[in-house]
Amino acid sequence: MRNGVRRRMGVEQRREQLIAVALDLFGHRRPDDVSIDEIAAAAGISRPLVYHYFPGKQSLYEAALRRAAEELAGLFDEPREGPLGERLLRVMSRFFDFVEAHGTGFAALMRGGPVAGSGQACAVVDGVRRAAYEEMLSHLAVRSPAPRLELAVRSWIALAETTALLWLDGRRIPREELELQLVHAFAALTGVSAAYDEGMASTLRRSLAEEPADGPLAELVHRLDRPAPQPS
Amino acid sequence: MRNGVRRRMGVEQRREQLIAVALDLFGHRRPDDVSIDEIAAAAGISRPLVYHYFPGKQSLYEAALRRAAEELAGLFDEPREGPLGERLLRVMSRFFDFVEAHGTGFAALMRGGPVAGSGQACAVVDGVRRAAYEEMLSHLAVRSPAPRLELAVRSWIALAETTALLWLDGRRIPREELELQLVHAFAALTGVSAAYDEGMASTLRRSLAEEPADGPLAELVHRLDRPAPQPS
Repeated sequence: MRNGVRRRMGVEQRREQLIAVALDLFGHRRPDDVSIDEIAAAAGISRPLVYHYFPGKQSLYEAALRRAAEELAGLFDEPREGPLGERLLRVMSRFFDFVEAHGTGFAALMRGGPVAGSGQACAVVDGVRRAAYEEMLSHLAVRSPAPRLELAVRSWIALAETTALLWLDGRRIPREELELQLVHAFAALTGVSAAYDEGMASTLRRSLAEEPADGPLAELVHRLDRPAPQPS
Repeated sequence: MRNGVRRRMGVEQRREQLIAVALDLFGHRRPDDVSIDEIAAAAGISRPLVYHYFPGKQSLYEAALRRAAEELAGLFDEPREGPLGERLLRVMSRFFDFVEAHGTGFAALMRGGPVAGSGQACAVVDGVRRAAYEEMLSHLAVRSPAPRLELAVRSWIALAETTALLWLDGRRIPREELELQLVHAFAALTGVSAAYDEGMASTLRRSLAEEPADGPLAELVHRLDRPAPQPS
């Protein structure tokens, strides 16, 4: 049966199959602990045939990484309308789905390691952060972000990464709670700036126009309605 | 004059002087860009004499790092009483003082680099994070933190690091605003958990007993007074 499948697969199909197998293996164990032999066995093909498609483990790891990066960028895929808090909550929910599926590989990559820490891997991680940042700006309907907004969004992305890494270490807290907590943290990271910067405040007011009174960003809406404190 | 000073310095004094010089140089440029010759010149002694006290740049860098780590752990030094929000705000203010003084070295260390990324340097950074965590627990008057509190405090420490790194990149936002923002973020990171976990809520209520109505944690106090939402 496996041989039958193998013969029917074209080059692209086979590469896709190997990437899927690698994503699964690299997602559940540290990259260093996964061998080409295991990848070959999981794909039901010979070791030399793996090398026919990918020159080595590093190139297969990088292909899997790029696939994971595409998946991460896709977390933000949804209409740019409706309450922002609920959109962010859905994005966080998909993010934790991803972290749950690729946990070990995600942790190894973010913490750095012999294979994971290669320049190519760092470039992919940076690319994901940049993509997440651009997607967030698009959800906020902002083209040229002011420094305060840029800092708040980048800090928030870093916080989501850290929270997921800490969560993976024991999973002692329901992820749904952390997803909501991260949406609240977004409000905290933008709310103070809004009190000092009218541009930031009006960007947020526009983005939050549809926010329901009991939504996760309700406190931020309330804060934006109050007069700004005087910087001391 | 310099020779006169040199002759009068004891071994410990000289080591202290070299550490102070190194802290300053490593704080303002990337560790790789600082040479032993420069350290010797800045201290007004010969290159061989530097090697007499420290076997090489790496060991001097590590001594400077440990000194910086002590300084960071000292950020939390203040009475465990009075409004928590104001205490955290003072801690953040001292943290940004530190980041301002040692900016380049701090960034090089946190981003990792050939010298900075050594095992010894990583151990020092981990030690600082652990010390900051213990200090925060002490300020919250908690001995055995529940998982939610641990995650919230660790996430907050990571967020403070990230925010400072992003701030260093251009310093486009007044640091006072970021210090306040980080105190609000602490409220966001603990507040959601408190809604789901009565233990966390009572820890926070106790810690926030002296919080003034217009303080940076007032919103958190308000949130803790409301009935908890039902997890969906």
